[in-house]
Amino acid sequence: MPVGLYAPTDLSPVDGVRLGVACAGIKKPGRRDLVVMEIAAGSTVAAVFTRNAFCAAPVEVAREHLGTGEPRYLLINTGNANAGTGAAGLHDARRCCTKLAALAGCRAQQVLPFSTGVIGEPLPVDRIKAGLPDALAALRADGWVEAAHGIMTTDTVPKGASRTVDIDGTEVTLTGIAKGAGMIRPDMATMLCFVATDAAVSKALLQRALVQAVNVSFNRITVDGDTSTNDSCVLVATGASGAAIADDDGAFQIFAAALAELCTELAQAIVRDGEGATKFVTVEVAEGASSQECLRVAYTIAHSPLVKTALFASDPNWGRILAAVGRAGLERLDIAQVRVFLGDVCIVRDGGRAQDYTEIAGQAVMARDEILIRVLLGRGDARERIWTTDFSYDYVKINAEYRT
Amino acid sequence: MPVGLYAPTDLSPVDGVRLGVACAGIKKPGRRDLVVMEIAAGSTVAAVFTRNAFCAAPVEVAREHLGTGEPRYLLINTGNANAGTGAAGLHDARRCCTKLAALAGCRAQQVLPFSTGVIGEPLPVDRIKAGLPDALAALRADGWVEAAHGIMTTDTVPKGASRTVDIDGTEVTLTGIAKGAGMIRPDMATMLCFVATDAAVSKALLQRALVQAVNVSFNRITVDGDTSTNDSCVLVATGASGAAIADDDGAFQIFAAALAELCTELAQAIVRDGEGATKFVTVEVAEGASSQECLRVAYTIAHSPLVKTALFASDPNWGRILAAVGRAGLERLDIAQVRVFLGDVCIVRDGGRAQDYTEIAGQAVMARDEILIRVLLGRGDARERIWTTDFSYDYVKINAEYRT
Repeated sequence: MPVGLYAPTDLSPVDGVRLGVACAGIKKPGRRDLVVMEIAAGSTVAAVFTRNAFCAAPVEVAREHLGTGEPRYLLINTGNANAGTGAAGLHDARRCCTKLAALAGCRAQQVLPFSTGVIGEPLPVDRIKAGLPDALAALRADGWVEAAHGIMTTDTVPKGASRTVDIDGTEVTLTGIAKGAGMIRPDMATMLCFVATDAAVSKALLQRALVQAVNVSFNRITVDGDTSTNDSCVLVATGASGAAIADDDGAFQIFAAALAELCTELAQAIVRDGEGATKFVTVEVAEGASSQECLRVAYTIAHSPLVKTALFASDPNWGRILAAVGRAGLERLDIAQVRVFLGDVCIVRDGGRAQDYTEIAGQAVMARDEILIRVLLGRGDARERIWTTDFSYDYVKINAEYRT
Repeated sequence: MPVGLYAPTDLSPVDGVRLGVACAGIKKPGRRDLVVMEIAAGSTVAAVFTRNAFCAAPVEVAREHLGTGEPRYLLINTGNANAGTGAAGLHDARRCCTKLAALAGCRAQQVLPFSTGVIGEPLPVDRIKAGLPDALAALRADGWVEAAHGIMTTDTVPKGASRTVDIDGTEVTLTGIAKGAGMIRPDMATMLCFVATDAAVSKALLQRALVQAVNVSFNRITVDGDTSTNDSCVLVATGASGAAIADDDGAFQIFAAALAELCTELAQAIVRDGEGATKFVTVEVAEGASSQECLRVAYTIAHSPLVKTALFASDPNWGRILAAVGRAGLERLDIAQVRVFLGDVCIVRDGGRAQDYTEIAGQAVMARDEILIRVLLGRGDARERIWTTDFSYDYVKINAEYRT
């Protein structure tokens, strides 16, 4: 069950962008599994991709096409990741782009492909090609909610968000959708996420805003520590609003802040819908000597199966948090300076259990659906925050039965 | 259920060592939870301890006592880890040593304390003190099997092993016991392990043999990636056999090899009895540029919740293994060179699924209780091997209900 997450009922259209969804029968019949996003000519596009060395064929092709042409279409399929498929997978991804280009009247290099689903199966190219006319016929400016449904895999709730900001008197819209529930530990990218805005932004500046936003949002979440082969996050700027954003103006700050906020909402939505999740957990590590060491401690806690099962049990077994801090590999950590809080309750101080800590106070925090674990290292000013979930029977069930 | 692991019925006594067990009611009444190991005067003792920064009070005290005196007694309790207990915990550990010293007629510095169990609760010193006379009265040379029972926590099977080697015509015995099933990812040490030999070995040489043995055994296992606060491994040499082992002789090689073999058997026993384990998994990474990168790939696979749940399901979902290799962070990894095997079945070659791979062949390997995952990196001569388990419903159950 997702934690405090509800399906979006209304996402703001972005001038210059239309979306169409079809059921291509890629893995199961009758399921929305094919999404086409049409982008107006003259738009700029930025993207970040997984750093997994075994990146999927569509990631390679999308990266290549992004470098050579002005993208006009994003082509997204679920049910098959086209990853671990070698040279045949690259060929398959290109065939899909060529078919869409022929139907839509553009060059194949103007199509960016994205896939998600099971790794290692050949992409059913014929089914995708057969589904494309339906998806193109369905293109609509208000197709965002439908598209959010169309990119789901083990997600239980579609994920989308909109923001509007005022840029020099002009209203600018940002809308994005994302998917992902497992194999979530984005590294410089995320699971599939598509964001568009009607502001006019140069490609370089758009990339800068996206990298900044991803870094504080998708790169701060983890469900299971497993970085996907297919992570991709794309940002499209159509310029249709007439508002232009230049390198050195305050408008960039406003735009970048709204983008970061939108990406954070989507990233948190992925965690809230994490496989088997019953808790939404914020791990905050402050007073660190560097950002890097704060993240190291935070991820050690967030990835600990013992901490995650204690969260599932609503058990304030703080010894496991303390053990995770201790094994994070920080040089010369003075444990007498470390304080650990569950919500507002101090549980560890002076190298051991806080004098005034009571099990009842700890249990009251752990009983909540949304939990804050806060660690103060007492050795600097750096601070980082990440979001994660617990580990439940359902996580095992979902992943043990994934291919059956 | 442990995987291919049976309780030892017979462990060889080691001249100069006696063991006694008592029920002190530390966590639950009527449970063997207190073990005393008596060491003959003139013995040498080597030890390695956890590198967790939040190391437990007994670890600090044992390290201190090992530096100052000739140990005569090891004092081991289960049911309480005396970790995360600050200054009070150190005081408590010392009080237990003082009491045993008074009863046994030695100095407190000659007692090394070890604790295992729940983190963060005050040590019930009075119960331990009250149990000591019983444990001392029970001291016997053939008390090893009983002691293996006495140090268990979530272990389902006691763990022990013996070896004999011929050193210059004299028979030398090595016997060891170990415990541990969860919070297992030893770092330069292990969960509790106590080994004794009747060879005569200098302290420096004994330490060298122990570090070597631990490095290829306990430092090569993981259940859940969580390094304990209480890991300790102790090696005692009584010299009672009359066989002396010197720095530069071939006898050291024979002795060290037998010790490494014994430690490997005990380390594997810990994995076989890992919490909720249904599989015993060997992860071998070869053709690496360095030992370090082989271990990095091996642990990334072994810690992946997605790989572990696939193992539990006996599902040859090799895409997850491939994704783990890809996210292990190796610089300039050429995925075209990487080959992955399940047992003898090649599943990945040339950047994708091996041409001749069939799901039936993969399933046949995964159906086994003992599984070998082998990754060839194609970029060097380094090779490493580690052992781990799967992730089951029972792992979640055991750890969600641990304190209830």
